[in-house]
Amino acid sequence: MKNFLYSLFLFLIPTLIYAEDGSKLWLRYQPLSAKQVKSLSMVISSVLIEEPGDCTAITELQYAWKQLTGKELPVAASLKDYSLVIGTEKSKLIQSLGLQKELQTLGSDGFIIRTMKSKGNRITVIASKGENGLLYAVFNLLRNIQLYVPSSNILRTIQLGSSPFTFDIKEVPSYKIRILNHWDNLDGTIERGYAGHSLWKWDELPGKLSPRYKEYARANASIGINGTVLNNVNASPEILSNAYLQKVKALAEVFRPYGIHVYLSVNFSSPAALGGLSTSDPLNEGVQQWWKDKAKEIYGLIPDFGGFLVKANSEGLPGPQDFGRTHADGANMLADALKPYNGIVMWRAFVYKSSMEDRAGQAYNEFTPLDGKFRSNVILQVKNGPIDFQPREPFSPLFGAMTRTALMPEFQITQEYLGASNHLVYLAPLYKECLESDTYCSGEGSTVAWVTDGKLFPHPLTAIAGVANIGEDANWCGHQFAQANWYAFGRLAWNNELTPEVIADEWIKQTFNQQKEFVEPVKEMMLASREAAVNYMMPLGLHHLFAWGHHYGPEPWCTVPGARADWLPSYYHKADTLGIGFDRTLDTGSKAVGQYFVPLRNDYNKLKTCPEQYLLWFHHVPWKYKMKSGQTLWNELCYTYDKGVQQVRGFQKTWDKMESFVDAQRFHEVQSRLKIQSKDAVWWKDACLLYFQTFSRQPIPYDIERPVNELDSLKKIKLNLLHHN
Amino acid sequence: MKNFLYSLFLFLIPTLIYAEDGSKLWLRYQPLSAKQVKSLSMVISSVLIEEPGDCTAITELQYAWKQLTGKELPVAASLKDYSLVIGTEKSKLIQSLGLQKELQTLGSDGFIIRTMKSKGNRITVIASKGENGLLYAVFNLLRNIQLYVPSSNILRTIQLGSSPFTFDIKEVPSYKIRILNHWDNLDGTIERGYAGHSLWKWDELPGKLSPRYKEYARANASIGINGTVLNNVNASPEILSNAYLQKVKALAEVFRPYGIHVYLSVNFSSPAALGGLSTSDPLNEGVQQWWKDKAKEIYGLIPDFGGFLVKANSEGLPGPQDFGRTHADGANMLADALKPYNGIVMWRAFVYKSSMEDRAGQAYNEFTPLDGKFRSNVILQVKNGPIDFQPREPFSPLFGAMTRTALMPEFQITQEYLGASNHLVYLAPLYKECLESDTYCSGEGSTVAWVTDGKLFPHPLTAIAGVANIGEDANWCGHQFAQANWYAFGRLAWNNELTPEVIADEWIKQTFNQQKEFVEPVKEMMLASREAAVNYMMPLGLHHLFAWGHHYGPEPWCTVPGARADWLPSYYHKADTLGIGFDRTLDTGSKAVGQYFVPLRNDYNKLKTCPEQYLLWFHHVPWKYKMKSGQTLWNELCYTYDKGVQQVRGFQKTWDKMESFVDAQRFHEVQSRLKIQSKDAVWWKDACLLYFQTFSRQPIPYDIERPVNELDSLKKIKLNLLHHN
Repeated sequence: MKNFLYSLFLFLIPTLIYAEDGSKLWLRYQPLSAKQVKSLSMVISSVLIEEPGDCTAITELQYAWKQLTGKELPVAASLKDYSLVIGTEKSKLIQSLGLQKELQTLGSDGFIIRTMKSKGNRITVIASKGENGLLYAVFNLLRNIQLYVPSSNILRTIQLGSSPFTFDIKEVPSYKIRILNHWDNLDGTIERGYAGHSLWKWDELPGKLSPRYKEYARANASIGINGTVLNNVNASPEILSNAYLQKVKALAEVFRPYGIHVYLSVNFSSPAALGGLSTSDPLNEGVQQWWKDKAKEIYGLIPDFGGFLVKANSEGLPGPQDFGRTHADGANMLADALKPYNGIVMWRAFVYKSSMEDRAGQAYNEFTPLDGKFRSNVILQVKNGPIDFQPREPFSPLFGAMTRTALMPEFQITQEYLGASNHLVYLAPLYKECLESDTYCSGEGSTVAWVTDGKLFPHPLTAIAGVANIGEDANWCGHQFAQANWYAFGRLAWNNELTPEVIADEWIKQTFNQQKEFVEPVKEMMLASREAAVNYMMPLGLHHLFAWGHHYGPEPWCTVPGARADWLPSYYHKADTLGIGFDRTLDTGSKAVGQYFVPLRNDYNKLKTCPEQYLLWFHHVPWKYKMKSGQTLWNELCYTYDKGVQQVRGFQKTWDKMESFVDAQRFHEVQSRLKIQSKDAVWWKDACLLYFQTFSRQPIPYDIERPVNELDSLKKIKLNLLHHN
Repeated sequence: MKNFLYSLFLFLIPTLIYAEDGSKLWLRYQPLSAKQVKSLSMVISSVLIEEPGDCTAITELQYAWKQLTGKELPVAASLKDYSLVIGTEKSKLIQSLGLQKELQTLGSDGFIIRTMKSKGNRITVIASKGENGLLYAVFNLLRNIQLYVPSSNILRTIQLGSSPFTFDIKEVPSYKIRILNHWDNLDGTIERGYAGHSLWKWDELPGKLSPRYKEYARANASIGINGTVLNNVNASPEILSNAYLQKVKALAEVFRPYGIHVYLSVNFSSPAALGGLSTSDPLNEGVQQWWKDKAKEIYGLIPDFGGFLVKANSEGLPGPQDFGRTHADGANMLADALKPYNGIVMWRAFVYKSSMEDRAGQAYNEFTPLDGKFRSNVILQVKNGPIDFQPREPFSPLFGAMTRTALMPEFQITQEYLGASNHLVYLAPLYKECLESDTYCSGEGSTVAWVTDGKLFPHPLTAIAGVANIGEDANWCGHQFAQANWYAFGRLAWNNELTPEVIADEWIKQTFNQQKEFVEPVKEMMLASREAAVNYMMPLGLHHLFAWGHHYGPEPWCTVPGARADWLPSYYHKADTLGIGFDRTLDTGSKAVGQYFVPLRNDYNKLKTCPEQYLLWFHHVPWKYKMKSGQTLWNELCYTYDKGVQQVRGFQKTWDKMESFVDAQRFHEVQSRLKIQSKDAVWWKDACLLYFQTFSRQPIPYDIERPVNELDSLKKIKLNLLHHN
């Protein structure tokens, strides 16, 4: 108890001093007014806890209740009117309410929150199959209290119940595994990390536990995330050494009460590199045994260990093809080792080699022949688009193309290609754009969401991954608004039918405040921000115009002696005096468009029917091609870049007006980054237009604000940045 | 002749290769079309030269005629119809035309160009009292040919004659002395020079003469300039050494055929510093004799030497006050030494000391008591405003306040405070604003122009000075458009009634082309440019917010340990939480406003009647003071800075549209500098608004484009610039 108080003390002190540094994320639990507390008490007069002690859900409810109301949670010993009853199916009381059958349908994570009559009392029940469900239910309840109590004096207006003061919520997550991928290296750096070094203090582990480990787990649980891959997909074999596994065990124990399972990225050549074997050939029995032994060792330490994430035969990493084996051979060997413990293998489909073959089509060509050949505990992890987390890509054609293999989407939360921690870019619209994309694999309506969440193909495994944007910065994510992307990923992983609008609304209200004059314009800004970034970076289907290595800022002209062609922007934009864009059509191009189902294949294949947002992704288009607007392609490109700049300036105006609604620290941090974004947008516009103008040989329309940079000067910019922080 | 051809060859080669680098200034003499040549020949069929050989006017006419028409000047031996007759009063033919009496009224520089009948022939006469007049007449004729022949097939539409094909022009310059001040140091640097090092190659002189010396003289003559002060007012005594005087003599000999007299800035302590005397006390006989001997030495070498320019007891330079004498004592001593040779003394009124007394009022207080005490060959050289060449100042109250002393305005052509050679700022509106200012010294209409050009007070001496913007850059002035300021100064010195519009029109047509689609927008841009600079730098009467030392860019916050208060921006803007501006009113302020005549004194003294463009010059104004627009002062300040930024962006649009009208080199040079100006305007706006906002504590109106810089970052900018180039 003394220890608990002490660590509570340690936790509270910084949050009091730096109350609004963003460290509390969306879990700020701002105190309710007396009137609001009274409203709340009309709905929840007391709480009847049907769970034994040490239940995280209860601890969280107690903590939040105290923060919100200033009072202790009013625990009751017996049912009263307006009691809140909390329990799993094991609870006698819950059983007596006749909910058991329904609870069986909820899986381990689902829950109900329902107002019902019991022994003459009107009560609200929080019930689930297991403890995880209760945790998610409590965070759901707390979110609803925060969102709706302050803006209305009763809960009736917002809940699903048919009459006032009632709840009728039933939630089951869209994906069973909702997981973050940390690209954290063992030396503390983070590949594509923009929020400071790694949270994981490997040097201190397992002996010393940073208080942030628990906060991390708690934040994830609050939005439904239930898994974390601790280390970079470009994995060091070292992570599987016993010394590191002891450290992983320590983290797993902190995370376990919050329902977070630990996973590891593994290096395919670990048997040789770490185990001293002469090979890592997946068909070699010694190798297979090495992995089995390793699995046993891991599960001996971490009984609920989740499994492996593998990047193999990709960008120089080892893999089964090094031994003449297939990706299926490799994945299955690992799957067999994990199977006894219910562990899984997430095998990344992000593979491409330097060849004459269009990079956009390589993963499809590599993996579709293997459909049906993977073990049931293998899931292919597929990036949302066929290239690499660009500001806009069409969805990866692998989605829908492998009906007998479990597929999980991989999104990037960290903003590798979207201005790092300097640009305000709300990514829910990007995630949603992919999830809502219709693959047509089983006719109209075969969205990526349905292809992956089990609705269309009944795979036992469903999962979704997001590459984390989390570091040791006080505010976790570098940019205050980058927290929204962590939040949005979690919420969409929980419920892929949520809209970016609803998620933004939730996040803003919990993270900042409830005032309509703040929420509405800020939401509007967030919702427009991804399209703005596309506009000022890479509109109309352009992609990968980024600077070499660090990917911050434009380098459409980039040449690096000896570099792989497919790592250079010119590979993607293919600008010449005739036009611009990558011809992926069937007749004259790379034929990659053929990987999509009809009608997309036909629509994308034809210049006239290809959506303009993908135009230069699929076509090499003449500069004077007439766009739907009536403008030539060149002019449209100019106007679109300019629009992006104007949009960011608009965001600055929006945010500056919000000063009185936000604490000074967060206001100024965001204001300052918007300034950078505004300057960067001009940089992008000038760089791309001035460079492409050397091909188009046409003036930038004269009603557009003129470039303020010289192409030659822009070409000289070499930022002192690495690909990791 | 061989030498001449050789030097012609040397001159032509670069102008052919770099035909449009701006080196030809406004003297490009673009070839006329065959049709245009025919038109011209209808007005001038042949030329009858009534002057002996070696007349510069004739040489220039011959050269230009060849350039324009591709043919030799059609010299005639006798009068024919449409002959052009050129001669001074000495010519028998001119005398026979009855022009002698009229020529006597023209002074040394005036001329007539008149179409008249003689012996049955309709002829046009160019006549003057002396050779200089002929030179100015020829340049006038050539200007008119260039301006009007291409745009009309006869001269009738544009000339002053009453019938077609006739001239009736009579011109006498506004000022007798039209002089450039070069702030060129003997080491080749130029104080406040932005166009490369000094034209004067002191190391090579007198033995080697750069071909540019003659080009310099020719360019000046073409716009009526007839004097040049070769060295910096912060003068080295060394300039008066015999070795340097030999160099000066060599330059004077190159300039003489173009009517340019040479003057020197002298250091007041030269007798001690150079002559080895124990004092430089102006009342000391030895000192007086030293100056007399020096004058004799100079005139022995340069019989038409113009005189001395003196900066004394100013910014640390020596002067008569060092010996307890007055400025009059000092000036008169020098005047006495020069008098026998008709030399003059230009004594600068730019004096101020570090004291509690408002710097703006010090020159007036120092000099007005000395009115009437100066010799007749002394002229006080007064900067246009009371501080120092700011983007906008009210006129100096010395104008009109000294009726018994000759006063000459000093303008700055070089852009010390106006963006150096990076900003396009056409200065004719600034010069004209001062010249047209009504001092009310002799009632309404007592303009600075009339006060100084002899119309109001009949001083024997009239003069006007411009601090040159000329250096060894190929285009002479750094910025192609800075040439316009040299041109405009010359033209206004010749005729202070010309408008900025007319001058800009002349300059554009000669420097670029005649096409209306080019001339009109470019002229509009030029005419707006000075006000734009005021807007983005120092609107509403703000002044001297410049960076320390080099004066490029904003430093309203500037503090330098141990610096004189009056060299720091805060001395001038006096921003505090109540308001901003320098209170120079009679009741509560420095009383400097009292130096102006009624009604200005009263108008400026009262907040309500003070013109808003001088508001913060004369008043410390509350942030919430309501301006004529209805806006508060703070908002007005914000909108005005923003307007300046938008104006420069507008200039970029204007110029970019002109690409097809201009040679590539000059187009891109100007385009490139406009980009810098555009970025600088944002820098100015952000720096001033963010800094002043720390006092106003009010938001920048939200409809204005937001700052993109951080005040703290701006404060860290320290450009690696000196006060000389």
